[in-house]
Amino acid sequence: MTAYEKPISVWISILYRYRRSYIVKKLEKYGSLGGWYLLVMSLYHNEGASQEQLAGILKIDKAAVARGVKKLVKDEYVIRRPDSADKRAYQLFLTQKALDLIPEILGVMKEWEKGILSGIPEESHGMIKQYLRQMAENACGVKPEAL
Amino acid sequence: MTAYEKPISVWISILYRYRRSYIVKKLEKYGSLGGWYLLVMSLYHNEGASQEQLAGILKIDKAAVARGVKKLVKDEYVIRRPDSADKRAYQLFLTQKALDLIPEILGVMKEWEKGILSGIPEESHGMIKQYLRQMAENACGVKPEAL
Repeated sequence: MTAYEKPISVWISILYRYRRSYIVKKLEKYGSLGGWYLLVMSLYHNEGASQEQLAGILKIDKAAVARGVKKLVKDEYVIRRPDSADKRAYQLFLTQKALDLIPEILGVMKEWEKGILSGIPEESHGMIKQYLRQMAENACGVKPEAL
Repeated sequence: MTAYEKPISVWISILYRYRRSYIVKKLEKYGSLGGWYLLVMSLYHNEGASQEQLAGILKIDKAAVARGVKKLVKDEYVIRRPDSADKRAYQLFLTQKALDLIPEILGVMKEWEKGILSGIPEESHGMIKQYLRQMAENACGVKPEAL
């Protein structure tokens, strides 16, 4: 191991992977919801979005969003409704079953957040979030308001 | 869109995905190296590691590491050598072709980092990295020295 300053992308990658395995495990009893909880949260904040819009918001490729939505529809977390403005398009909505689980998903996300912030002074948490937000905005070149 | 404080995991997820698409695109001319550059960087800092060790370091499942290594071997970025201490195991090493590209990979990672830190005062960069490191350590429960 050479002494070198590890790049930010290494920390982001570790945080992403461990977060995923943590949250997926906590939600695994809910089937597809575990792996696709960000899709569900994104729909929660963007009711009626289309698959294309979700792909744009989450920067996931359209085929992956289509796979996720298909599974979420099968497990009755999401319903598709034809878009009245565009006959070829569908709007997506969460079902009551999914809406009932939102507090639990938010709870698991908060629990993870509390864990990773452990040992960091509470007065720095706001600043860390602010910087992460700014970095995310820089990364995608827009303010991701819709997330 | 309701006003709510977006959780850290949303920013981590955006940063992870945009970083991936940025770096993969910049390195796509090098075939499998683009998608597996973290595996290559990890081997660079852990010469002779086994697939199992890489899976542990990067928190990627073993099947995915096996897929990545197979592609990297095929593209002549990685070679497998039987482990003298354990006949059933293999040690992995970067080829000269991969070693020659390390500066370029590091350059692309630095370039991305510069982009996401844009607009954030330089005197805060060290602190941001320190906090990200601590959060990553908290997330995986160990000091990821080997990364």
